Amino acid sequence: MTERLSEQEINLAIGSLDGWTLVAGREAIQKSFKFANFNQAFAFMTRVALKAEKMDHHPEWFNVYNRVDVTLATHDVNGLSGKDIDLATFMNKIAA
Amino acid sequence: MTERLSEQEINLAIGSLDGWTLVAGREAIQKSFKFANFNQAFAFMTRVALKAEKMDHHPEWFNVYNRVDVTLATHDVNGLSGKDIDLATFMNKIAA
Repeated sequence: MTERLSEQEINLAIGSLDGWTLVAGREAIQKSFKFANFNQAFAFMTRVALKAEKMDHHPEWFNVYNRVDVTLATHDVNGLSGKDIDLATFMNKIAA
Repeated sequence: MTERLSEQEINLAIGSLDGWTLVAGREAIQKSFKFANFNQAFAFMTRVALKAEKMDHHPEWFNVYNRVDVTLATHDVNGLSGKDIDLATFMNKIAA
């Protein structure tokens, strides 16, 4: 069962997630990733897609050339869950 | 040399491109594609990414689960070019 994170848990998680911020007016987190070019940006997206499919937890994302803007939230809990933190952590790791 | 399409050429091209429309307030075209699930949506994106990289002409696109919203324009000409029509045609073909 996926559980919704409390405000305290969210703030704690955000504090340790480089570059991720809360979305205004919505319980979700976002980050904009920049890469050297489209090839690198899409390579990142492909690794995230495989991970997301395995987790059955998918991002909302926008890509233009070398930029990937990601928003994460958990529909089932109408807010944020540990899955969002896990996926955000994974993205930071592979983008590093 | 990439050439900017005239209004007449754009309207002619749009007329034969199923589902593509002009973006309000910007010389660009857009279409929202729907698939059975994320797997199919990302498979589509991957095929488009390889084509885009080969053409050196990249989309602006947003994906959430089974939906892919695409916007095409040609920065070099500050408008639309034959490359946009070619990429849009390719997308329609592989999404069919």
